[in-house]
Amino acid sequence: MKTLKIIKIGGNIINDPIALDAFLKAFSKLEGLKLLVHGGGKSATKLASQMGIKVKMVEGRRITNTETLDIATMMYAGKINKQIVAQLQAYNCNAMGFSGADSNTIEAVKRPVKEIDYGFVGDVVKVNTNVLQLLLTNDVCPVFCALTHNTKGQLLNTNADTIASALAIGFAKDFNVELYYCFEKNGVLTAVNDDTSVIQNLDKKKYKLLIDKKIITDGMLPKLNNCFYALQHQVSKVCIGKAEMLYNPNAIFTTITE
Amino acid sequence: MKTLKIIKIGGNIINDPIALDAFLKAFSKLEGLKLLVHGGGKSATKLASQMGIKVKMVEGRRITNTETLDIATMMYAGKINKQIVAQLQAYNCNAMGFSGADSNTIEAVKRPVKEIDYGFVGDVVKVNTNVLQLLLTNDVCPVFCALTHNTKGQLLNTNADTIASALAIGFAKDFNVELYYCFEKNGVLTAVNDDTSVIQNLDKKKYKLLIDKKIITDGMLPKLNNCFYALQHQVSKVCIGKAEMLYNPNAIFTTITE
Repeated sequence: MKTLKIIKIGGNIINDPIALDAFLKAFSKLEGLKLLVHGGGKSATKLASQMGIKVKMVEGRRITNTETLDIATMMYAGKINKQIVAQLQAYNCNAMGFSGADSNTIEAVKRPVKEIDYGFVGDVVKVNTNVLQLLLTNDVCPVFCALTHNTKGQLLNTNADTIASALAIGFAKDFNVELYYCFEKNGVLTAVNDDTSVIQNLDKKKYKLLIDKKIITDGMLPKLNNCFYALQHQVSKVCIGKAEMLYNPNAIFTTITE
Repeated sequence: MKTLKIIKIGGNIINDPIALDAFLKAFSKLEGLKLLVHGGGKSATKLASQMGIKVKMVEGRRITNTETLDIATMMYAGKINKQIVAQLQAYNCNAMGFSGADSNTIEAVKRPVKEIDYGFVGDVVKVNTNVLQLLLTNDVCPVFCALTHNTKGQLLNTNADTIASALAIGFAKDFNVELYYCFEKNGVLTAVNDDTSVIQNLDKKKYKLLIDKKIITDGMLPKLNNCFYALQHQVSKVCIGKAEMLYNPNAIFTTITE
């Protein structure tokens, strides 16, 4: 079975042109099959404010209405995705941009309304990998932005971490899938402000313990839940850390195990 | 040799949601291999004004600076392209969005500066069809927006008529290519305001005569030059008219011949 690396990058890289360029250069040199997923960083919020559109919040959560979905579509699938694709092409990586609507790669449903109506936010229901596999085996590198569709003509905003994990699971029957979440820290830390306090190996037992002790909190929970979910669904390796974990053999990062 | 229909739609359809939906429904039903190219309509200008960005004009020509390139990328590759792709998916057409940077399909150079520096405007130099052919023969329908790249990381704004013609020529060695330019009129007219005055067959001789008589002027010249250029480069059929020429057997339109 061939190995497929699925790599997710977030705002810390996307919002910093120098860091992004350095990452794309290193990414382009990674050997073997690879797929990139990118978030949108703060660019969508910035564009909304430039256009005089207020981001609607309910109980501290962002709501995706028609206007903010348009902004996400323009920023994620348009500016960020195409700039990444063009830059990877410059580094001789045959990148091709995707939203989940493109060749129906990621089907989703609008998140059901319970206490909060999140608006045009999609929960992934199905990943179709046949066209992607064809492209991967023909030396094309798919680059996904954080958008899906409901197969009825509606685009939906979907968390980029979730997209990476859904794609990893979707490919797990055909490839030995490694999933890498790149973010601004060296990995899962026992002391949030101490980048040397990396938990190099985090299994479910340790994870539960650290939640109980309130060492792992808030923002890390959805990311780590995605990691364990992927491992439970035949993804063979899941790592969290700075992007250099991909190419620096001395990098310290967190490997998640079951 | 299989037939490939390359269809370009412009602002008259894109700016009208009802017309766009009707077109996409009809397009999805067209049999055989097909590829869609779309312009941006007035949406980019509207977005620029919403963002308080002034479109720079020199001698009546629009200049693409960094800000307006970003707007074009967001609007063409983002909002318009993804909405078209999602809607085609709803009509069971396996659409996939492309800029010329995606899998390096359309290479261009920044237009050389003579009297005017047009900024980030690209003149097409090469079309790479191998990945597109793979997708077409696997039932995927490529949907192109009007952006190319210079293979060095720079996206470039390129006229959608030119993209359609360049793709048609690029495919002409492998397919029997038919190129359809859809616009707001029934075809090339002898009286610009009389939609019944369609020239049903326009060859180069007649074309030159009508230019001399100033019956064909201005806006139609670049479009028709693209048509004749395509015919000279092995494209087998070129037509201009309303979109209904594609599916209404009684539609009247202009067929261009050498």
